[in-house]
Amino acid sequence: MKYYSGIDLGGTKIYAIVIDETGKVLGRYKIKTEGENDADKLAVKIADCYLESLKLSGIAEKDITALGLAVPSSVNVDLGILKYAPNLGMKNVEFLKILKRKINKPMFMDNDVNMGIFGEYSLGSARKYKHVYGLFVGTGIGGGYILDGKVIRGVSYTAGEIGHMIVKIGGPMCNCGKSGCLEAIAGKVGIINYIKKQVEKKGKKTALSDISPDWRKTVGSSALRKCYEMEDEVVVKAINKAAKTIGIACANLVDVVGVEAIVLGGGLIEEMGEVFTPMVEENMKSYSIADGANGVALIKAELGDDAVALGAAWFTSLEENKNYLK
Amino acid sequence: MKYYSGIDLGGTKIYAIVIDETGKVLGRYKIKTEGENDADKLAVKIADCYLESLKLSGIAEKDITALGLAVPSSVNVDLGILKYAPNLGMKNVEFLKILKRKINKPMFMDNDVNMGIFGEYSLGSARKYKHVYGLFVGTGIGGGYILDGKVIRGVSYTAGEIGHMIVKIGGPMCNCGKSGCLEAIAGKVGIINYIKKQVEKKGKKTALSDISPDWRKTVGSSALRKCYEMEDEVVVKAINKAAKTIGIACANLVDVVGVEAIVLGGGLIEEMGEVFTPMVEENMKSYSIADGANGVALIKAELGDDAVALGAAWFTSLEENKNYLK
Repeated sequence: MKYYSGIDLGGTKIYAIVIDETGKVLGRYKIKTEGENDADKLAVKIADCYLESLKLSGIAEKDITALGLAVPSSVNVDLGILKYAPNLGMKNVEFLKILKRKINKPMFMDNDVNMGIFGEYSLGSARKYKHVYGLFVGTGIGGGYILDGKVIRGVSYTAGEIGHMIVKIGGPMCNCGKSGCLEAIAGKVGIINYIKKQVEKKGKKTALSDISPDWRKTVGSSALRKCYEMEDEVVVKAINKAAKTIGIACANLVDVVGVEAIVLGGGLIEEMGEVFTPMVEENMKSYSIADGANGVALIKAELGDDAVALGAAWFTSLEENKNYLK
Repeated sequence: MKYYSGIDLGGTKIYAIVIDETGKVLGRYKIKTEGENDADKLAVKIADCYLESLKLSGIAEKDITALGLAVPSSVNVDLGILKYAPNLGMKNVEFLKILKRKINKPMFMDNDVNMGIFGEYSLGSARKYKHVYGLFVGTGIGGGYILDGKVIRGVSYTAGEIGHMIVKIGGPMCNCGKSGCLEAIAGKVGIINYIKKQVEKKGKKTALSDISPDWRKTVGSSALRKCYEMEDEVVVKAINKAAKTIGIACANLVDVVGVEAIVLGGGLIEEMGEVFTPMVEENMKSYSIADGANGVALIKAELGDDAVALGAAWFTSLEENKNYLK
C-alpha cells in the first residue's frame, strides 16, 4: 500500500492529512499560524504539522510516496511557483524549493480551491460527473474547473477565478480593484457591504449588531444564519441577493461552457446551504438560456474541512499526474 | 481521395461547399431563401444547393462520403434534432430525418457558430491553439467552445451562448427576455438600442440617419463603420461601449475557464475588426485578474463566409466523429 500527504495551507492555519492509495484518510492534524508570512518559518511549521499528522496516522515518514500542497494563491504548477498570495504576504516565491529543504519528498503545489474541487470531483459529491465547476463561498468566492479529469488552469494559471467574473458592470467595488465582480456582491465581503449600506445610508436596523457587534470588521457565517432564521429584514435581503447573484453566475457557466455539475462549498454554504442551494438553483434555471440548466446538477460539497488537503493528496497520488511532481 | 459536403443554413440563405479530405475547398454555391420555414420545402432547397455545389466542384454525388449541416439553432447532435431556431420558425424538428429523404448520405447536424469556431480551430486562424472560445458578433453574439479538439456542447446542447452571459445585472433588456446579456449591449441590436436612446431621449444627432435612414429597423455593419470613420459622436460612443463590453466578457472567459485563445468573427468584426480588436484586447487585459490575459491570444477569424460550412464539412470528415453520423 502506498501513502500520500496532503497539506492545506491557509492564511491562519495549516491542515495536514495522510491518505492511503485508495483515498482513505488515515489521520489529520491542524495548527494555527497567526499570519506567518516568512517562507522559511512557514516551511518549518508545515513540516511540523506534516510529521504530527503522520504520527496520528501511524505511518512512518519513509512510507510517504509524495506530498500535495494547496495554497491560497494562483500557482505556476509547472515550475512550483506561488504567484500571489496576499493572505500569506508572498509573491512569486519558489515555495516548493523552500519546503523541500524540510521535507524531502516528491511534491506538487496548486491553488487551494482547485484542489478542493478536485477532491469533490474525485472522492466527494461530484464524483459522478465529468465536467464540473466548483464555487467556494466564504469571505470571497473561489472556484475551480475540471473537465474529463483535468484541472483546467489556463495559460496564466488563473482559471477558476469565478469570484472575479464581472456580472454587474458599474456595480459595487471589489477588493481586486474592479467593480461588479461576483464576490463583491455575493461573497461575505459583498454581503457585509450591502448590510453596511442599509444601516449607514438608509438608517435600517439589523439584529446582527446584537449577535455579532463587530460585524463591520468580521462576521461568522453562523451569525448571518441566526439573523436569517430570525427573519431580520436587512440580512434576509442581503442573503437573498447573494444567492440570486450566485444563481446568475451559475447560469452564465451553463450558457457559456455548458458544465454538467456545479458544486457549492465554503463556509457560507456549509452554514447556510439549505437556504442558499434552492435559491441558487431557481435562479440558475430561470437565467440560463433555452432551459439549458435543466439537466445540470447543483450539488453541495461534502468533504468539509478535508476537501482541499484530500484533493491535493489524491491529485498527487495519481499516475497520470506524476509529471507534475517536483 | 474522399469528399465531403458542408452546408450553412441561415435565416435567409443556404451556403454549400465541397471539400476534399485535406480540407481544400473545391466549390461553393449560395442561394437566397427569403425566410422559408417549411421543413420539407427547405430540405428540397438544401438538396438543390448541394447538387449545384457538386457541379461547380466537379465532384460526382456518389463520391461524397458524408454531409455536415450547420443550423442557427441549438441542436441535439446525438439525436439530430434542431431544438429551437426562431429565424427558421422551427422548434424540435428531426430535421436530419427530413433531409435524408432528399440526400441519402451519412449526416451530422450542429449549431452554426459551433461549426464556424470549429472551422477556425481546425483550418483557420486558431489552428495553433487547443483551448479556444469564439465570439461571432453580428445582430446578436454567438459563440463556441473547444477544448482539446472537442466541441463542448453541455448537457442541454446550449454551451457557447456567450451572447447571453449576464454582464450587467439590471442592464438593457435582451430579446431573450433577460436583461444585461452581453448581446443586448454589444451585439448590433444593443448598439442600435443605445443609439436610439441617445437620439430619442437625449436629442442627439447622428450621421447614421443620412447614411442609413432605416437604421432603426436594420443597419449594415458598413454603415456603422462609415459613421465611426466620420467620428460621429453617437456611433463612436456606441461602438466603444460595445468593444469594451466584449473585452469584459473576454476577461470573464479568461478568469473563469482560462482559455488560450479567443477568436473574434462575424459581420461586425469583419467590417470593423481593426477598430474592435485593440479595444477588446485592452479591456480583456485590464479587466482580467492577476494579469491572467497576458498570455491569451486574441485573434480575428480568417475563414469569412466559408467558416461555418467548412467547419461542418471538416467535423464530419474526421474519423473520431464518425459515431455522430446519422
